[in-house]
Amino acid sequence: MGNQTIYFKNRPRIIATSTIAGPKECEGVIGRYVETALSDDMYGESTYEKAECKMLSKVIDGAITNAGLRREEVDMIVSGDLLNQIISASFAARDFSIPFLGVYGACSTMAESIAVAAAFVNGGLCKRVVAATGSHFASAERQYRYPLELGCTRPPQSQWTVTGAGGALIADEGKGVKITAATLGKVVDFGITDVNNMGAAMAPAASDSILAHFRGTKEDVEDYDLIVTGDLGALGSRILKDLTWEKGLDISKIHVDCGEIIYNVIEDEYQGGSGAGCSAVVLNSYLYSKLMSGSLKKILFVATGALLSTVSSGQGESIPCIAHAVVLER
Amino acid sequence: MGNQTIYFKNRPRIIATSTIAGPKECEGVIGRYVETALSDDMYGESTYEKAECKMLSKVIDGAITNAGLRREEVDMIVSGDLLNQIISASFAARDFSIPFLGVYGACSTMAESIAVAAAFVNGGLCKRVVAATGSHFASAERQYRYPLELGCTRPPQSQWTVTGAGGALIADEGKGVKITAATLGKVVDFGITDVNNMGAAMAPAASDSILAHFRGTKEDVEDYDLIVTGDLGALGSRILKDLTWEKGLDISKIHVDCGEIIYNVIEDEYQGGSGAGCSAVVLNSYLYSKLMSGSLKKILFVATGALLSTVSSGQGESIPCIAHAVVLER
Repeated sequence: MGNQTIYFKNRPRIIATSTIAGPKECEGVIGRYVETALSDDMYGESTYEKAECKMLSKVIDGAITNAGLRREEVDMIVSGDLLNQIISASFAARDFSIPFLGVYGACSTMAESIAVAAAFVNGGLCKRVVAATGSHFASAERQYRYPLELGCTRPPQSQWTVTGAGGALIADEGKGVKITAATLGKVVDFGITDVNNMGAAMAPAASDSILAHFRGTKEDVEDYDLIVTGDLGALGSRILKDLTWEKGLDISKIHVDCGEIIYNVIEDEYQGGSGAGCSAVVLNSYLYSKLMSGSLKKILFVATGALLSTVSSGQGESIPCIAHAVVLER
Repeated sequence: MGNQTIYFKNRPRIIATSTIAGPKECEGVIGRYVETALSDDMYGESTYEKAECKMLSKVIDGAITNAGLRREEVDMIVSGDLLNQIISASFAARDFSIPFLGVYGACSTMAESIAVAAAFVNGGLCKRVVAATGSHFASAERQYRYPLELGCTRPPQSQWTVTGAGGALIADEGKGVKITAATLGKVVDFGITDVNNMGAAMAPAASDSILAHFRGTKEDVEDYDLIVTGDLGALGSRILKDLTWEKGLDISKIHVDCGEIIYNVIEDEYQGGSGAGCSAVVLNSYLYSKLMSGSLKKILFVATGALLSTVSSGQGESIPCIAHAVVLER
């Protein structure tokens, strides 16, 4: 296909959002915009996985409540997460008597779920849909890397999986942030095999989707207030800016990465935040409030995902990545 | 929401399909309808996971080729599978330079991917989309249960994960099987905790979606030639017929289950086939040919999925399930 960009002519809009984040996340600059700040990342549960699921359930309920809606007025939940078989999303959906579409895009899930929800609303198939995702540092570490109890040292190129979740209520009418277009990503693999260097692995996918977006829409970088990537981190963001610049697109003036801004930079996050919850929290708290207040008029939200598994890495595979972009306008 | 059913007024249609299955599957009655019959379930690969991925890639390519299209004429691939982080779908999508939406619905993935693809095509966002999924007995056994090398005995209520894949090319025009409606499922959990009894776990979800479909559409069972469930197996199918009958809907005359018909019944499949590949193979081979030939006019395809993981089961959770239904008409 020549053009990867789809246009939502009926302007589905995000009429409400909800976010929750852990103590570490809420110490950052984004923290003050988060709706629910946790003092304990166990969130009163017996396991990290159950805490992650509870966070996701909380923001789905929060998005519905903040929109002034009752559950029976919501047509669908589109959600996914990083855990095997997306159990956080599936078990969260069990708490609601609402049709559920499970999606998997790793850390690109926030953009993917918004694009899918917008497609159903734009086409008149649904009136109100919740798009949500989240992640938990401890559940991700023990599934993808090592049990925390082992106390393994983290290499300098690594990122810190965000403990948090974000949800958006997308409707066919009402006051909110309009979803006007989306550029769905292709799977891009530059042969990176270092599972501690997600930023480097995902940057080419982000570059591919951003270039496809501007090529397809014929827009200029200047048409946007921000190009926000999901969780490339500091290193990945530098690589992205180099890759796009090499192709003649200079995004450096307006590019910001959710992983780069979510934490106060101290020693152990190294390159910054990551995880599906990273862009979900930043978009649905900080960015949404700036869009609603009008201080941001139009942004390109590009959530990035690394589509590896411990099995694929164990079998010597490199890390295929993807990035989905959605255009959000006040 | 009162009505879970969405209608695809622009009649997106399946203009071509492609299927592949293992030696055991091709011995069954469905076997002769399968496009590519494997003599070796390793499919020339070094691991079961790579074989599963190769099968999925094969049917995606096959659906495009059988529709007489070139890859650049396809707007999107919607796919998912049973492996952690849906690596089969993600790595298969890496072989194609086509935008990719990853979905996860366990064994309900064929219906979910068709519904999502139909939504994008119906709304004019895409013209041609491939929906595909698959599974592999050996990769599923070692991820969800035990390594085959252990030689664990299988309980009589267990099913046999199908080694196979199926893909459908869904387009906005052309000769094919029309996708006229879909009833998206809710997550239903009746508290079943036996991971060897998926049929019993999934039957309530199938019942919930089928009842919601007939309640929402006001149609009668007689309006359909078949109500085809994904992979409940023999035991699950009996439970489904009881559950719907108790609610005043008798589907027994026209109900058939893909898991029940895919194998010649011999000792070790017990309740029959399962896995995302089960309904994907049966729909895209046998059922598609019967719909195209006109011997089936209208069917309700209800793929069912068990949304558990080894972690959720290990933490004492029951098995939440889901069933998505799509209406297919000649």
